[in-house]
Amino acid sequence: MTSRTKYLLDESDLPTTWYNVIPDLPEPPPPPLHPGTREPVGPDDLAPLFPQALIAQEVTQDRFVDIPGEVLDVYRLWRPSPLYRARRLERALGTPARIYYKYEGVSPVGSHKPNTAVPQAFYNAAEGIRRLTTETGAGQWGSALAFASATFGLECEVWQVRASYDQKPYRKIMMETFGATVHPSPSKETAAGRAVLEKAPDSTGSLGIAISEAVEQAAADPDTRYALGSVLNHVLLHQTVIGEEALLQFAQAGDTPDVIVGCTGGGSNFGGLAFPFLREKLAGRIAPVIRAVEPAACPSLTRGRYAYDFGDTAGLTPLLKMHTLGHDFIPDPIHAGGLRYHGMAPLLSHIYELGLIEALAVGQQECFAAGVRFARTEGIIPAPEPTHALAACVQEALRCKETGEEKAILTALCGHAHLDLPAYAAFLAGRMTDNELPESVLAESLAGLP
Amino acid sequence: MTSRTKYLLDESDLPTTWYNVIPDLPEPPPPPLHPGTREPVGPDDLAPLFPQALIAQEVTQDRFVDIPGEVLDVYRLWRPSPLYRARRLERALGTPARIYYKYEGVSPVGSHKPNTAVPQAFYNAAEGIRRLTTETGAGQWGSALAFASATFGLECEVWQVRASYDQKPYRKIMMETFGATVHPSPSKETAAGRAVLEKAPDSTGSLGIAISEAVEQAAADPDTRYALGSVLNHVLLHQTVIGEEALLQFAQAGDTPDVIVGCTGGGSNFGGLAFPFLREKLAGRIAPVIRAVEPAACPSLTRGRYAYDFGDTAGLTPLLKMHTLGHDFIPDPIHAGGLRYHGMAPLLSHIYELGLIEALAVGQQECFAAGVRFARTEGIIPAPEPTHALAACVQEALRCKETGEEKAILTALCGHAHLDLPAYAAFLAGRMTDNELPESVLAESLAGLP
Repeated sequence: MTSRTKYLLDESDLPTTWYNVIPDLPEPPPPPLHPGTREPVGPDDLAPLFPQALIAQEVTQDRFVDIPGEVLDVYRLWRPSPLYRARRLERALGTPARIYYKYEGVSPVGSHKPNTAVPQAFYNAAEGIRRLTTETGAGQWGSALAFASATFGLECEVWQVRASYDQKPYRKIMMETFGATVHPSPSKETAAGRAVLEKAPDSTGSLGIAISEAVEQAAADPDTRYALGSVLNHVLLHQTVIGEEALLQFAQAGDTPDVIVGCTGGGSNFGGLAFPFLREKLAGRIAPVIRAVEPAACPSLTRGRYAYDFGDTAGLTPLLKMHTLGHDFIPDPIHAGGLRYHGMAPLLSHIYELGLIEALAVGQQECFAAGVRFARTEGIIPAPEPTHALAACVQEALRCKETGEEKAILTALCGHAHLDLPAYAAFLAGRMTDNELPESVLAESLAGLP
Repeated sequence: MTSRTKYLLDESDLPTTWYNVIPDLPEPPPPPLHPGTREPVGPDDLAPLFPQALIAQEVTQDRFVDIPGEVLDVYRLWRPSPLYRARRLERALGTPARIYYKYEGVSPVGSHKPNTAVPQAFYNAAEGIRRLTTETGAGQWGSALAFASATFGLECEVWQVRASYDQKPYRKIMMETFGATVHPSPSKETAAGRAVLEKAPDSTGSLGIAISEAVEQAAADPDTRYALGSVLNHVLLHQTVIGEEALLQFAQAGDTPDVIVGCTGGGSNFGGLAFPFLREKLAGRIAPVIRAVEPAACPSLTRGRYAYDFGDTAGLTPLLKMHTLGHDFIPDPIHAGGLRYHGMAPLLSHIYELGLIEALAVGQQECFAAGVRFARTEGIIPAPEPTHALAACVQEALRCKETGEEKAILTALCGHAHLDLPAYAAFLAGRMTDNELPESVLAESLAGLP
């Protein structure tokens, strides 16, 4: 073990393939179903929404998928990303544990999202598509797709969840600086948005609603496609570049992770870090515990139902077998921690059902306390999302302090909080409450399952 | 020349000394004077404001000053910083020039400022100081000192220029997340602030006023010292870590800069990049043109007077020989580009007088246009300050396109704009005007010179 603070890879060590975990699983995940026929959807069903290359990646059985040179060229603007040893946090906690974090905040928009936005924009541009539509919640994904669209000369139109649109004006400016158009969602631009506004004129929105709006617009125009920032197999595939790099960096460090902890909203950041390590675990080369952490306000893995549900509120998408809170679920707008999607990636849900990963939910005060502690020791103010993982890291590191175990903990610090600072202001001013999802709200939302 | 996008150094290549350009200059810079006696100030005059170690660095004749191990430990959180080749911008401009940028936005607060905040906090803590006071304009410096103070267990109190305090709420939250206390300036906390508010209750403030407030508070308490984020010799000294790294990275690239371009407010970012290259130039090993770029709204080098003036508005500091707009100067609050200090670093002013560097002023619309162009090609949204340097880079690259010259241009991208996005919103909405300093305002401000 060296005494280094960070482990950097050379550009020449940038992975040239993404890793597809599906062929390595003991059984394949259940397929998406057509909502009318309840038969597995085929490529033709998805063609109005996605380019052929991404549809192929969605169902591929190849273990490794080549990353195009044009995508690598853009990745090189910030990749390989650093792996840090959090020595100052370890000292502050007085733990014998070694805490590592893989930092994705070095990307142009400050999160892991460009890892998939860039290939999605590339494949669309390569197939002659002119415009992309998407949804965004906290704004990380919309920013990433706006950046990626600028890079490949595509127009980009974003529906941003109203609560976030109003609370996070800087995100909109970032998207516009990259040349995108941003609408609050629900909007009057789409039938799906108008239907919601008719029933609830003051709706604060949800990712499910925003997805309906973006999907509706894409399906209506042959030159437009839709891009999703998480949940689907091809998105998780692209994010595995994180875990592949981290494997190389652990080799550099001469260490092996005992515990891997990541936050889960749709599941792409977590899957991106964890799947390459899961491959090594399934092959018997390492034996880490792999733990997903979600907000108590939006606990799809720990309290949702494993069932077929729509990916969006209006029911425009195929049915996905996933842990879901119900596609009508509207997260409490006071929840500041991101990770607000009603469902969990089908692939991750399947892996959870197989018992290959653990999950827990954490309240937002504990998360922001961990975020402040991290900022004051490591210098980086974490985005609200990864504070969930940091809270679980702190729990684990303090358990190690009690037991004396010298575990190596790895977490994905998937972004910084520069554009989410008002949430920290609320926490520091004592204006933040914990916001566990009430049983009655969950029951009502689950009642809407198809 | 390789085809790489970025040049990274290993942690072991982090410079272990700062470079002091003074002994290499053909003549020494004029000393600071006591405003009463007009005699050079001695260490005792500065002791109420600064720790002994920094006073010693302010006047040292050593060419190289060791960086303490505790400072290197913190530098390693983000240093060495990357040097990028801006290939995508070059292609967009169609220039034969090679454009390189040294990116300091990877620091915890997103700018070069921690390079000096960290050693300043370290030396104060080492001498038993309990609290630091400072001023901040756009907020980059205040954030950096808040971070550095958290790192070494110091309290930190920041006076933030009112115009910026109101326009940039995120900066205040960042400082508070690191544990600092933030006041708008002018404030009622100090005699200097109250004096300004009495004459101008709606004052939007200036760096000169905020410095007066922070200095007054530090001088009144034996456990408190003051920290300045630019202008002084020791600050420029600490920033030379930028240029020392860039020299190593140019060697990696197998290239040599023909033109070095940096933005100047107080001068520390510019000096930090340029001085190590100036050493090599004075030694006859390279021959780059070195060019300072300042805002047309605050043009101290190009339109200020080279004279002894106060560093602050209330006249609490020693007199410094520098290019100054007059210490009463209040920048137009519509100026969004930062770099709003009335004076230029005495060391840089002296070097300019010696004819060793060039200077030009640029209007803010040209700057933000360069910033947007950079964002859409390179992915990083530049802080308003370095858009000045980018505008001059674009000018140079387009001249190369006309002449066919294959020059290598190096610039300091000293920070990102995540907390300055409202300025981009104003530019994109066409609400930004150019704001050259009117001759009459300059004349009035210069009339106040001591």
